[in-house]
Amino acid sequence: MKEIKVLAPATIANLVCGFDILGMALKEPFDEMTLSLKDEPGIHIKHTDEYNIPVEAEQNVSGVALQALMEEYKKPVGFNLVIHKNIKPGSGLGSSAASSAGAVVAANYLLGNIFSNEDLVRFAMNGEKLAGGVKHADNVSPCIYGGVTLIRSIFPLDIIPVNSPDFFITIVHPQIEVRTSDSRQILRKEVQLKNAIRQWGNIGGLIMGFMNNDFGLIGRSMEDVIIEPVRSILIPGFDEVKLKCKEAGSIGGGISGSGPSIFMISKDEETATNVEKIMKGIYEKIGIEYKTYVTAINPVGVKVVKI
Amino acid sequence: MKEIKVLAPATIANLVCGFDILGMALKEPFDEMTLSLKDEPGIHIKHTDEYNIPVEAEQNVSGVALQALMEEYKKPVGFNLVIHKNIKPGSGLGSSAASSAGAVVAANYLLGNIFSNEDLVRFAMNGEKLAGGVKHADNVSPCIYGGVTLIRSIFPLDIIPVNSPDFFITIVHPQIEVRTSDSRQILRKEVQLKNAIRQWGNIGGLIMGFMNNDFGLIGRSMEDVIIEPVRSILIPGFDEVKLKCKEAGSIGGGISGSGPSIFMISKDEETATNVEKIMKGIYEKIGIEYKTYVTAINPVGVKVVKI
Repeated sequence: MKEIKVLAPATIANLVCGFDILGMALKEPFDEMTLSLKDEPGIHIKHTDEYNIPVEAEQNVSGVALQALMEEYKKPVGFNLVIHKNIKPGSGLGSSAASSAGAVVAANYLLGNIFSNEDLVRFAMNGEKLAGGVKHADNVSPCIYGGVTLIRSIFPLDIIPVNSPDFFITIVHPQIEVRTSDSRQILRKEVQLKNAIRQWGNIGGLIMGFMNNDFGLIGRSMEDVIIEPVRSILIPGFDEVKLKCKEAGSIGGGISGSGPSIFMISKDEETATNVEKIMKGIYEKIGIEYKTYVTAINPVGVKVVKI
Repeated sequence: MKEIKVLAPATIANLVCGFDILGMALKEPFDEMTLSLKDEPGIHIKHTDEYNIPVEAEQNVSGVALQALMEEYKKPVGFNLVIHKNIKPGSGLGSSAASSAGAVVAANYLLGNIFSNEDLVRFAMNGEKLAGGVKHADNVSPCIYGGVTLIRSIFPLDIIPVNSPDFFITIVHPQIEVRTSDSRQILRKEVQLKNAIRQWGNIGGLIMGFMNNDFGLIGRSMEDVIIEPVRSILIPGFDEVKLKCKEAGSIGGGISGSGPSIFMISKDEETATNVEKIMKGIYEKIGIEYKTYVTAINPVGVKVVKI
């Protein structure tokens, strides 16, 4: 029996101004998944984590992603999947994307890498649809490609890796629940043209900042005049975190994905650690449970660790 | 008396998907301007072209741009300006921007280059406001910086040059009048979020296409789901031009600025010349007077040719 273990990293979707089109892979946290190939068809899933996730294939994000892959593989094949999630569902850190992307990267490896990364994103988006009701690729793309990715279009899929400098990322995850589907529903269906223009200037600026290693430009471009003003209302302490972390030297940041996690970028590890202290202080004061991470960009994405 | 001559090039604003935030300088056509410094204050403007443009400083786009520069210069100074425009006003090829940008670049040169390019854009935007009612920088920025520029923000001004590959540009200017102010007024004040998302994916894609010399990506990203569907109605033959030029090998294109000129990009001069023939054929058939250009990116912007 062929078996493989992969580490599927957390991801930050949107990167503040790039709603649905930008995402970045992180070194930590990551899920651990062991996949083995079996001759008899069918998907058998086991979770060894604490999250009480349904294990029926069609109700599990890894399961539906694998099903999409198997449909295109055509030959009869089955999988045993053991998942240990470290990325808490509903954190805004791409938990469902890690499960979906990790499963299809592992399966592709066991089948001889016959599918392209773009194919794998397409399969993994089925997991995103199950989790949040909408196919989106801004978590699964960076999870599979690593680094920062631009998703120009979903139909047809058009993914462009974006070079970026190394930097540190501090994350605070206040332990409140924000469902991706809810956080989409509170968004207005229409936006003002003048705000859309400001947003597309920032998207261009952020991409140029990454490509040119221009931290000043990255910071100025991490501004969201459309989504953040609405979604940040759901996150206690948001404005204070952003303000105080910037005062402490962070380049910029905002809501990770649909929240409630908040991420802040720093040029050096010392600043990133100071930012973590500030985040802790704020949530201690507010009295909300929280979890923090100090991590960095993950240039690889899902990592195969054992064959 | 110190005197200087400059060539101020035409520019293509928006580049299809980047309304108000992207622009590109062209080698042709260009305006010719001769500026001389005089000791007595005041601006004296003469037009040697056919366009019947007001020459009172406060009603002339070059004049108001120079006035803005003089206000910051503070010392008393005056200018004689002779303008020969080759870029027809109302063509959508940045005619007012060439007049504004050319005047302030020339003045800065005569005063010892004390102002930055960003300062000059700020001054020149006063000309744009006089011409179209709104300060915008997507023509004056590439006119002054050369090449392709991203305007992340106007207030505060944040201009980022974008590297790009060399390519050829074919332009057809159907001789109908579309006023910039009219073509702004027909735009809706609100846009659908899903269209805004598609647009910002394309903006990211276009910038990545330029940075990576990826002509396929440039072509796919030159898609405008917000402005073009509205503005193209004002331009007879638009859909046919775009379709047939693409069939002939053009990478992509669309409305230049607020129109009525249409530009199409090609990788080589032969295709660009074929595209010109197609454009001519279409407007011959429709029976509208037209003018065409086959040109290329201008990496320099306003050019000083004589001291």
